[in-house]
Amino acid sequence: MGSSVVAALGKHATLLEQRTGRRLEIVAAATRNPTKHRDVDISHLHFVDHPLKLVESNDIDVVVELIGGADGIAKELVESSLAAKKHVVTANKALIAHHGLELAELAEDQGVSLMFEAAIAGGIPVVKTLKEGTASNQYHSVHGILNGTSNYILTEMQRSRRDFDAVLKEAQDKGYAEADPTFDVDGMDAAHKLAIIASLAFGIAPHMSHVHTQGIRHISLADLDYASELGYAIKLLASAVQTDAGVLQTVCPCLVANDQPLARVDGVTNAVSIEGDLIGSLFLEGPGAGGDATASAVIADLIDVARHKKTPTFGIAAPLLAQPKLTKQTTKSSYYMRLETNDQPGSLADITRICHGQNISVDIMKQPRHTPGVHAPVIITTHPTTIHAVETAAAAMGALPSVVTEPQLIRMM
Amino acid sequence: MGSSVVAALGKHATLLEQRTGRRLEIVAAATRNPTKHRDVDISHLHFVDHPLKLVESNDIDVVVELIGGADGIAKELVESSLAAKKHVVTANKALIAHHGLELAELAEDQGVSLMFEAAIAGGIPVVKTLKEGTASNQYHSVHGILNGTSNYILTEMQRSRRDFDAVLKEAQDKGYAEADPTFDVDGMDAAHKLAIIASLAFGIAPHMSHVHTQGIRHISLADLDYASELGYAIKLLASAVQTDAGVLQTVCPCLVANDQPLARVDGVTNAVSIEGDLIGSLFLEGPGAGGDATASAVIADLIDVARHKKTPTFGIAAPLLAQPKLTKQTTKSSYYMRLETNDQPGSLADITRICHGQNISVDIMKQPRHTPGVHAPVIITTHPTTIHAVETAAAAMGALPSVVTEPQLIRMM
Repeated sequence: MGSSVVAALGKHATLLEQRTGRRLEIVAAATRNPTKHRDVDISHLHFVDHPLKLVESNDIDVVVELIGGADGIAKELVESSLAAKKHVVTANKALIAHHGLELAELAEDQGVSLMFEAAIAGGIPVVKTLKEGTASNQYHSVHGILNGTSNYILTEMQRSRRDFDAVLKEAQDKGYAEADPTFDVDGMDAAHKLAIIASLAFGIAPHMSHVHTQGIRHISLADLDYASELGYAIKLLASAVQTDAGVLQTVCPCLVANDQPLARVDGVTNAVSIEGDLIGSLFLEGPGAGGDATASAVIADLIDVARHKKTPTFGIAAPLLAQPKLTKQTTKSSYYMRLETNDQPGSLADITRICHGQNISVDIMKQPRHTPGVHAPVIITTHPTTIHAVETAAAAMGALPSVVTEPQLIRMM
Repeated sequence: MGSSVVAALGKHATLLEQRTGRRLEIVAAATRNPTKHRDVDISHLHFVDHPLKLVESNDIDVVVELIGGADGIAKELVESSLAAKKHVVTANKALIAHHGLELAELAEDQGVSLMFEAAIAGGIPVVKTLKEGTASNQYHSVHGILNGTSNYILTEMQRSRRDFDAVLKEAQDKGYAEADPTFDVDGMDAAHKLAIIASLAFGIAPHMSHVHTQGIRHISLADLDYASELGYAIKLLASAVQTDAGVLQTVCPCLVANDQPLARVDGVTNAVSIEGDLIGSLFLEGPGAGGDATASAVIADLIDVARHKKTPTFGIAAPLLAQPKLTKQTTKSSYYMRLETNDQPGSLADITRICHGQNISVDIMKQPRHTPGVHAPVIITTHPTTIHAVETAAAAMGALPSVVTEPQLIRMM
């Protein structure tokens, strides 16, 4: 990531000077292993032996932090840089999601910028759009596909007709997924990004504990296929929605109708849909990861700093950021349910009785064709109802003697 | 348009104060008829009896010009406002496309901003994205669907199985299209916007005479259907592409492959696809017109001004803007051709001979089913070739005794 930034700064020196009216120079750099082989020649850089030494240099106006991690040396570097009145550009979503408010206060007190366009959705200028491009709007909601690994796995499962584990293994072998994929497939990475987006859109401090997070491990190829037959794709959606009870922040797999642009976002691509009172709906799609996409965002932030453009870290001054309310999922949604039954007469009657008991209005109930002798699936989609009602109903259905596996429950966007 | 801006400024007064750190107040306004009935109450505004009186007031920091037109009072107001060191926010694409360079020089000399986000693609922050969000990139190309009326007509022709004239008439009756639709359906409106985009992306002065412009009047329902069978949509595309010979600027109907996001942009929606060396491809889609979408962009510009954010008018200082070269369409493209023949034996042989003579390599040649006794259509798609070769071939084919109407020729994106 760092070497892509170095390469792009070198390649675009003249262009950037035209666009900013000044030369962007790399004064010094720090890396664990300066002599490691890289695709980019970095031998011309002046290396210091510890990142914190960068803070001591009076020649340095901006520190670019590409270390990662919510705490440790990354946090120490960002804090001490801001304290020394140096602007900071970072790609560190965990740091901003966990410590955004205090860092924003520090930056604003010191009169310097803390920028993190690269922390969300790679090269897509989501931060700038929310803070500036559509800042004239009262935002209603922001929905995003923010984790390329998860989206790749869901896309590839259906394309190659394989289940989650097989596709994850291949993605790991090819280097698309980490050896420990938890962060990606369990939704943590998307949750970090969403907490920042919610802050930018709704003027609240980022707060990881307010993001309801569920990953994609439980999504089966069968779910993808049934959803597809109904006219939907399944995507790991990160959503921040203004409700009467506060800003509801969720990361979870969702059925997205095929006529929604988000349904067509495949592979490692990222996308964001922004709904506001003036704009209606704005959709942005682009590369969510990779050295060049990250460099695009990091250097765009550097351009803003070089142009002396300053905006409050989260779009409004840090002291004005509200503490988010702990928001329960009380808004109603439609849900998809998949039950595996032993195909006994009367099981549909039991299922409909349970829905009725929870005041759940069934939209579609469907028994897909199946091989006789194996489990008979039943697919249900509901009209909008509460998560409490469907979870209660799913538990009751799971306890039926005719239902042989735990019911699958997926929200519909 | 003006009243939507007034309404949004009123409704969002507190939000905008939070986001900018200051209050945005409408000091005075000018309109032809202040007492005309509007959906928005504007009776509280202080009206001056001539727009130029706004320039005289010392209380006014920013003048918002929503009059329109490349010359006349709009130009006079913008020039005198800049000369009086007032920032200008405008939605006037004709003015910027025709006089952008001199106005940018004036604004920069005076140390004030000239902003025009609302001039292009309504609420989509295209100007900000090109100037800032992805300004770290060397741009390769920008393609856009920038005229909602034309896109609505093309979408509606196919949806309702009607030809251009019928759909245009209905759009006029419903108020979606102007009584004089020339500006929209002949491509001028998109050409204005493209000249500005080309300037922002490629550091050249906007120049209307450099935009090759063709409208959509000649597109038939049959073309839309044949394109669809081949896996394409037909869209009025505005394209600025960096070529070896300079920046090629074209507005013309194009076949866009269905797997491209631009192919799926229907109705009055606008969209832009930006290709750059770091970002790869970035796609933006949103409302291209309407009072609220325009207000979203106008007020986003006002927010930038209120935050003291200043960027050169076209992304680099006006004196650095290059004069564009008059670029001929020398880059190769694939083309779609439709010929109506009298179904005589031997006509395909004549057609292929002509292609061969022009060194045109045929990708697909197709004779769709047709009613015996009427014209027999022949559809050809080519591999990449020059506009000169296909135009020469089309003329030769049109002169064949078996070809009964002028050949249709449409570029493929």
